[in-house]
Amino acid sequence: MSAWVLPDHIADVLPSEARHIEELRRALLDTARGYGYELVMPPLLEHLESLLTGTGEALDLLTFKLVDQLSGRTMGLRADTTSQVARIDAHLLNRQGVTRLCYCGPVLHTRPDRPHATREPLQFGAEIYGHAGPEADLEAVQLALECLRSARVSGVSVDLADARILRGLLRGLDIEPARLNDLQQALAAKAGSELRSITAQLPTPVRELLQALPGLYGDVSVLDEASRVFAAHPALLEAIAQLRWLAAQLGDVNVTFDLADMRGYAYYSGARFSVFVPGASDALVRGGRYDEVGAVFGRNRPAAGFSLDLRELVGVVAPRALKAAIRAPWGLDSALRAAVAALREQGETVVCVLPGHESEVDEFHCDRQLVSSAGQWVVKSL
Amino acid sequence: MSAWVLPDHIADVLPSEARHIEELRRALLDTARGYGYELVMPPLLEHLESLLTGTGEALDLLTFKLVDQLSGRTMGLRADTTSQVARIDAHLLNRQGVTRLCYCGPVLHTRPDRPHATREPLQFGAEIYGHAGPEADLEAVQLALECLRSARVSGVSVDLADARILRGLLRGLDIEPARLNDLQQALAAKAGSELRSITAQLPTPVRELLQALPGLYGDVSVLDEASRVFAAHPALLEAIAQLRWLAAQLGDVNVTFDLADMRGYAYYSGARFSVFVPGASDALVRGGRYDEVGAVFGRNRPAAGFSLDLRELVGVVAPRALKAAIRAPWGLDSALRAAVAALREQGETVVCVLPGHESEVDEFHCDRQLVSSAGQWVVKSL
Repeated sequence: MSAWVLPDHIADVLPSEARHIEELRRALLDTARGYGYELVMPPLLEHLESLLTGTGEALDLLTFKLVDQLSGRTMGLRADTTSQVARIDAHLLNRQGVTRLCYCGPVLHTRPDRPHATREPLQFGAEIYGHAGPEADLEAVQLALECLRSARVSGVSVDLADARILRGLLRGLDIEPARLNDLQQALAAKAGSELRSITAQLPTPVRELLQALPGLYGDVSVLDEASRVFAAHPALLEAIAQLRWLAAQLGDVNVTFDLADMRGYAYYSGARFSVFVPGASDALVRGGRYDEVGAVFGRNRPAAGFSLDLRELVGVVAPRALKAAIRAPWGLDSALRAAVAALREQGETVVCVLPGHESEVDEFHCDRQLVSSAGQWVVKSL
Repeated sequence: MSAWVLPDHIADVLPSEARHIEELRRALLDTARGYGYELVMPPLLEHLESLLTGTGEALDLLTFKLVDQLSGRTMGLRADTTSQVARIDAHLLNRQGVTRLCYCGPVLHTRPDRPHATREPLQFGAEIYGHAGPEADLEAVQLALECLRSARVSGVSVDLADARILRGLLRGLDIEPARLNDLQQALAAKAGSELRSITAQLPTPVRELLQALPGLYGDVSVLDEASRVFAAHPALLEAIAQLRWLAAQLGDVNVTFDLADMRGYAYYSGARFSVFVPGASDALVRGGRYDEVGAVFGRNRPAAGFSLDLRELVGVVAPRALKAAIRAPWGLDSALRAAVAALREQGETVVCVLPGHESEVDEFHCDRQLVSSAGQWVVKSL
């Protein structure tokens, strides 16, 4: 094997894409900041139980494990940042009121979670803690959409679901975790025959409602149908009313509903949303309410938020033009140095051509050059 | 153990520091960009032999290893980014001319490399490839100093050394790697008695010159003395002349010399520099020439550059004031929403107070509020 071969699903990001990712990163962080979200930076490595308690099997399988030489304990490389931020809210900040936090950094996956997916997503996300009402859910969706607008993504479509529907239907039934996992998988895949087999032993009313779930997707008329189907379940009707309210606040964005959507990690506890954009094979943004994530850290605060992968995002937005640069000769002359420094101070990129490299092609697009004219250094077009 | 306990030498970065790190990150990347350095993002994980070939034992010991489930091969988590960027230059970009690259991202260390050091530095660095002359060394030092200026660091001091001095003295001698390592350690620590014992078997002229090295530190007069001591070694005299030239170009920065400095990783091949600042116990920046790093990737290009840890940097600069925010009520009223959106568009942070949280303390410092006055939403002082 050559030393330059990278592991599968691991890649370098080269200059043009890296520049674009950095621009998007700043746009997203500035947008979150405009909404009052404070940046935090949780570590890449934690004790395994901190990372994984309560987050479900899917995340466990995605998490690289290694042994800490200092303590002999098993550590995990974070595969998702949500539970880390919940830990910061619960333990470190420990504020009484509403807390808004955002983050942006790499996560690592043992295997790609889709074909062609990277094993090193650059995860950006925002979370709002301390408010149980639907206003927090709405803010999470609105901020996610505003982030995509700041990234100049168009053709956005929001898909709404609610984790309380399945929870409500199964309330009081004793279902072992492995079977629940199978059930969620079958619902997510809308796999009718598997769903029939998994639900075969359940009481008839629950079985019928579960089997109806995969058909409940589409436009707002789905909510009307769901209201009829779940008429005997007040908790479900409340969830559906909330989805209707959320959708009504989103203005002219295309909104659909998929009441069987169970994809993503296991921590969702209420309204959920996925944002789809043209060019992405799967949801670009996933978010929703996950009130129970902080419980393991001793504080079960209401929480809602979302995350996205910047490496996926950069693939669906048009590349931005590289700002043109200025070519300058290399030299120790103090007037030349001062001219170069002044241009850089103004935000210009000034590429000094080192001695002997005058005939090389610039990698930066240089549309101007710094030349000496009548004893002055001046910028001229190229 | 509580779930919120982090591993030793691993820490969360909380809002006020995270914001500052993000501001510094942007300042450094923008400074590098102004010099024509293109951003790249190498992966956190690579096959171990790609990360470690030719980089020496110190880096190996710092590198976490894990097994790739997809291939069964051993991967490493990068503990340093320099060899990754050399791989990108050598293999992926494969340009003929001068190439300038920069990067900013986390690295991980199995153990802290100093007492109280983090095991997760946030490494920023810049590298210039393809130019063997001292102009590239000078650009690396100048860019490092400009980065520190952009971060508003003051009281900077540059320490110069050259890897060719030890190499030149040992030329033609057959020294096993372990002994060479011990020798470098003894020189770095200026440990006279160890140095005498390690060099005891070497020919007298070499032994005497090696034992003289630890004394060669201080101001520019060190170079005059070194020129006398190494008068019989033209290659060493050339290195010393280059250090003199470099120092002369650095203007009013305090420059010192330490010809026995061998600290840091094993890849240096020419002039080296360390930047010290008040408040940091060790060098904040290390850099220099490392022409041989790309060889393992099939292209032995001249290379010079530097790196620093943003988490260390943030510890030695004064915190910047948080920009004051605007407090706004929550509501679905479209005029209110438009007013909030317009303020955010202008770069303001607008914190909407969710229903029921009106009496909470804002975490953002709000010095203004959005209020309804005569049917208009207006910003008033708080």
